[in-house]
Amino acid sequence: MKNLTPQLQIIKQQINEYIISCDNQQCIDLFNSLPFGKMLRSQLILKIAGISPESLKLCAIIEMIHTSSLLHDDVIDKADTRRGKLTINAKFGDKISILLGDMLYSIAFSQLALMNQNIAYIVANAVTQLSIGEMMDIELANTFNTSYDKYYEMIYKKTGTLIEASSKAAALLASKDSDKYALFGKNLGLAFQMIDDILDITQDSTALGKPSMFDFIDGKVTIPYLLLYERTENKDKLKSLFKVFLSKEDMSWIKEEMQKTKALEDSIAQAVSLGKKALEALKGEDNIFLEELINSMIKRTF
Amino acid sequence: MKNLTPQLQIIKQQINEYIISCDNQQCIDLFNSLPFGKMLRSQLILKIAGISPESLKLCAIIEMIHTSSLLHDDVIDKADTRRGKLTINAKFGDKISILLGDMLYSIAFSQLALMNQNIAYIVANAVTQLSIGEMMDIELANTFNTSYDKYYEMIYKKTGTLIEASSKAAALLASKDSDKYALFGKNLGLAFQMIDDILDITQDSTALGKPSMFDFIDGKVTIPYLLLYERTENKDKLKSLFKVFLSKEDMSWIKEEMQKTKALEDSIAQAVSLGKKALEALKGEDNIFLEELINSMIKRTF
Repeated sequence: MKNLTPQLQIIKQQINEYIISCDNQQCIDLFNSLPFGKMLRSQLILKIAGISPESLKLCAIIEMIHTSSLLHDDVIDKADTRRGKLTINAKFGDKISILLGDMLYSIAFSQLALMNQNIAYIVANAVTQLSIGEMMDIELANTFNTSYDKYYEMIYKKTGTLIEASSKAAALLASKDSDKYALFGKNLGLAFQMIDDILDITQDSTALGKPSMFDFIDGKVTIPYLLLYERTENKDKLKSLFKVFLSKEDMSWIKEEMQKTKALEDSIAQAVSLGKKALEALKGEDNIFLEELINSMIKRTF
Repeated sequence: MKNLTPQLQIIKQQINEYIISCDNQQCIDLFNSLPFGKMLRSQLILKIAGISPESLKLCAIIEMIHTSSLLHDDVIDKADTRRGKLTINAKFGDKISILLGDMLYSIAFSQLALMNQNIAYIVANAVTQLSIGEMMDIELANTFNTSYDKYYEMIYKKTGTLIEASSKAAALLASKDSDKYALFGKNLGLAFQMIDDILDITQDSTALGKPSMFDFIDGKVTIPYLLLYERTENKDKLKSLFKVFLSKEDMSWIKEEMQKTKALEDSIAQAVSLGKKALEALKGEDNIFLEELINSMIKRTF
């Protein structure tokens, strides 16, 4: 817990208490071996709803749901590391990772059942959308997807909905305008995922913690590739590089074509535009932290 | 849906509507390819709570949760067939099976969030126990378990809790004595699992749809093996047969020892005793169907 702020430590402690109350030593040990990230969703919730027993509980619930989805993701992607640590599936096998995910999901839902019914429904429904988004992600990777609408729908479901639900639920807790905060969360989530998709191309493997341009190798036609396919004169060559090992020359060609066609530049512009939409949604809400968060996301070097 | 009674068809139709409302063709197709069993839990709910929009909704929720756990189980056990049909993981891969399970879980929880809060908590909490039970099942299979208490706790969590919760929630819906029905469901669930564990030994592979005595090969020291280990003079031989391929001679030896030590007979007696406890819990409730259900379970040929 060393790197977490005191507030985020309280959230981790809250989750810990839920796990301990299940009275199973294996689950307690497994949970303690899980790495926690920056808890973006909890940061949002606390900045929107302030700190109260209810908002901390909502944070714990959302983090458990997010962690569950990562545990299942790592099995699906056969991932060995996450946040610089060995994944649960790499250490203890797929079975344990699936079941620990199920356990965290159900603890989260048990606690959610004790909250305001409207909030419970919003969060549970976001998890459904998240699962559908994950399925779309796999389905879209079967062939070279050229539909922007499908990509947009997929990233909205996979990443946008849980951030949207976190933001909306926090606003409801704080009796703020939930529609505004839902729109903010949705656009923040979309921008967040697009930026992630862009960094996969612009960052090297050290910064990414995985091979550069791995998305395309993995079958994921993200926003820069969608724009490139639309604009390049050599569509066949681009298609021939889909889901295969990429040599240094292949990677250079893709990057050069992205520069030439402005596919990368316009992808960044789209992400920035979504970030601005998120900010606009909050006009008049006077929440400096959230403005800073968005600005730090979109004013970065790509 | 051919083999389902009209009531159970309505439940499947209800689940279908939830899936359709998610508006994803892949999920709809996958759901339609799932085989449904006898829906024991729904039968219980309808017999306890009668037929109403709320009880049918509870049935749909419980069946979605049960189906999700089977989808994840089949990935964990690398199972190819279930109920005589190819499993989703065998047909479409582990990824799809995990995510379809997650999706059904979350739809179930979304609908649960709209129900009575007490019922929502009871059911969600049972799912947590179910996941812990599954983890215990895997953990116990790592070594030769000789603890009856651990076996009992594991089958209670893995199988008992969801049947207990179904029964209790149905009683709450019908304003019946929920403690009585919870106790009934718990003991029914325990008896049900013990009988399943006994049939693994007494039935042949055709009746089981999997190799006979597969539990022991798979590392599961079920009730007849626990009693046998306690009583046999040849503990070393029994241990040497744990988690290995069993020849015909090995199987015969185990079965003969089980006869000689009355391990099998006493296991059946325990299951019957649990069935009777379930009946006792319902004394004065005058529910002939439930009595018949228990009697058909415990008065069978093993």
